[in-house]
Amino acid sequence: MATQGQVITCKAAVAWEANKPLVIEDVQVAPPQAGEVRIKILFTALCHTDAYTWSGKDPEGLFPCILGHEAAGIVESVGEGVTEVQPGDHVIPCYQAECRECKFCKSGKTNLCGKVRAATGVGVMMNDKKSRFSINGKPIYHFMGTSTFSQYTVVHDVSVAKVDPQAPLEKICLLGCGVPTGLGAVWNTAKVEAGSIVAVFGLGTVGLAVAEGAKAAGASRIIGVDIDSKKYDTAKNFGVTEFVNPKDHDKPIQQVLVDLTDGGVDYSFECIGNVSVMRAALECCHKGWGTSVIVGVAASGQEISTRPFQLVTGRVWKGTAFGGFKSRSQVPWLVDKYMKKEIKVDEYITHELTLGEINKAFDLMHEGGCLRCVLSMHE
Amino acid sequence: MATQGQVITCKAAVAWEANKPLVIEDVQVAPPQAGEVRIKILFTALCHTDAYTWSGKDPEGLFPCILGHEAAGIVESVGEGVTEVQPGDHVIPCYQAECRECKFCKSGKTNLCGKVRAATGVGVMMNDKKSRFSINGKPIYHFMGTSTFSQYTVVHDVSVAKVDPQAPLEKICLLGCGVPTGLGAVWNTAKVEAGSIVAVFGLGTVGLAVAEGAKAAGASRIIGVDIDSKKYDTAKNFGVTEFVNPKDHDKPIQQVLVDLTDGGVDYSFECIGNVSVMRAALECCHKGWGTSVIVGVAASGQEISTRPFQLVTGRVWKGTAFGGFKSRSQVPWLVDKYMKKEIKVDEYITHELTLGEINKAFDLMHEGGCLRCVLSMHE
Repeated sequence: MATQGQVITCKAAVAWEANKPLVIEDVQVAPPQAGEVRIKILFTALCHTDAYTWSGKDPEGLFPCILGHEAAGIVESVGEGVTEVQPGDHVIPCYQAECRECKFCKSGKTNLCGKVRAATGVGVMMNDKKSRFSINGKPIYHFMGTSTFSQYTVVHDVSVAKVDPQAPLEKICLLGCGVPTGLGAVWNTAKVEAGSIVAVFGLGTVGLAVAEGAKAAGASRIIGVDIDSKKYDTAKNFGVTEFVNPKDHDKPIQQVLVDLTDGGVDYSFECIGNVSVMRAALECCHKGWGTSVIVGVAASGQEISTRPFQLVTGRVWKGTAFGGFKSRSQVPWLVDKYMKKEIKVDEYITHELTLGEINKAFDLMHEGGCLRCVLSMHE
Repeated sequence: MATQGQVITCKAAVAWEANKPLVIEDVQVAPPQAGEVRIKILFTALCHTDAYTWSGKDPEGLFPCILGHEAAGIVESVGEGVTEVQPGDHVIPCYQAECRECKFCKSGKTNLCGKVRAATGVGVMMNDKKSRFSINGKPIYHFMGTSTFSQYTVVHDVSVAKVDPQAPLEKICLLGCGVPTGLGAVWNTAKVEAGSIVAVFGLGTVGLAVAEGAKAAGASRIIGVDIDSKKYDTAKNFGVTEFVNPKDHDKPIQQVLVDLTDGGVDYSFECIGNVSVMRAALECCHKGWGTSVIVGVAASGQEISTRPFQLVTGRVWKGTAFGGFKSRSQVPWLVDKYMKKEIKVDEYITHELTLGEINKAFDLMHEGGCLRCVLSMHE
């Protein structure tokens, strides 16, 4: 390919500083080094984690940077030693790596991977601890090891899932974060059984994916909890069978749910990132076995709390990252499930814009009617 | 039997009010009503839960009452409809009932039982919501549905485990609480696998039983944590392979343990009842899979807390009551294991006194060298 081994100059949305509008810039993207892959990003969606770091509330956020972590594209070139993908492969970049060699990957107990975390956590690549992005020689930090708000990005090879080339990239970009997180929280982390009563706190994309996963698992009741009652109509399409708005009740929401379910739910999922809601989600669980899974990401420094008696009497408190899915192994499987129409993806896409409209897309995210906004990168 | 159907007057240690020495009184014990069993208690041990309620810190504590919940005896008589035990049977009264009929018992997911909780929680019997204990007509409350600090007690039939009559009652009384709690926390709640690294916080009876259970499960390292270094010698006999005294370190104990174990322990157990230690026990667990089990009972109103990131990155927070053992079904099995020398019991007994010396026994409990003090009830 003509660009192989060359610096590529392309458009990217740069976050120069916290909480200031992103700026579309001409960015230089260096060629991939050993163990790296350069990807032409075709479609990217926006997720709340992008907005969180952009807001400046993330103490680990580094600026200037290129945000974005839910995307799909085509491999442009690969660095030395990369064998599992080659130019032309359709791929989904994964913020959660899977090296298959580290203590975590070999444990058989988690999808977390330790191999490139030290670099991705500080916005650089492992090989030389530097960024592949620059503008006129000034480095721009990577984000989550993905930086998909750029027409080209460089990622570690352990962070690339090769997928069915027949799958529409403008849809399956969503399988890079939110949808797998919700489905996996149900299937991998909670392991919801048929007949269970489930509560879902927060009916955004992740919460709806939890509902979808719970429905697929055979849950008998799926109770959606949200302070925006308008969300119930959409939520029904994803499997929610009942809706509770905490604002409609004087009692604490955990008590409302306990009363509604003869003692509490079997499984609850917090898909907001609010520590008070995390407590309510635990405490609405049934004594003896109720399990609550934290899916949402709370702001830095915030803490969860409860009375230890809640756990001593049998409730279990867990969390999940990327739904417990092993990224390179299982994202392709999720794509296949989508192709076989076994999981929804299209239904989460409420808006489609272009890279140049990214600030509008962030505005949309904070509106109730928006689930996922997909940006086309090359118009 | 001559006493059947009659009120029995016997000796009992009465807690007239919080934090005042117990008084040995002549107590009238009414005959068992429908679904009840009157037991001649031969031996009882003391446990920290007795001391907690006696101290007045338990907001649900009712006075005057007869404390005690770790004991063994012989059935004296049974009320109407009781079929599973009869006079002469050797039994262990169980504060955790097992009715085999309620939602909890039938769930297959918990050892908690809801059948008599409403009565035992307020110091009375289900049948007429009254106490079977009185002194000159003045009722004395039951405690935990057991009240074993009396030469005779009345309990619900769902709270009686019938055991091998060959087993020495002066030993197996310990199988009414502390030892099963520790063993079961490992075997039932955490399900520790061979090769695991385990941390035990607090090396009293329950903590030592955790170590014993972990050793039996094949744990590769069992790290005892206690602020009294003298406990290490005894702990070695129960399986503890390493000892850490938090007072010997400037760093938080969770960090000490993470450093000592290349990332954290696989399982941790809090056997003290201190909410700060509960947090440390969670946070010393390995990212990705470490599971912490709360075994100790914290004082009323106290809360546990942590950053939700601890759970989102794969740690699991659980608790256990009576080690997850189903009391009527599994206490007899534990007695059999003891008879086959598969579990220790004798080794936990450091002191033997009589009912009349019960206040001295409570004093001993707060000394480092005491594990369990067994009281002989009929000398």
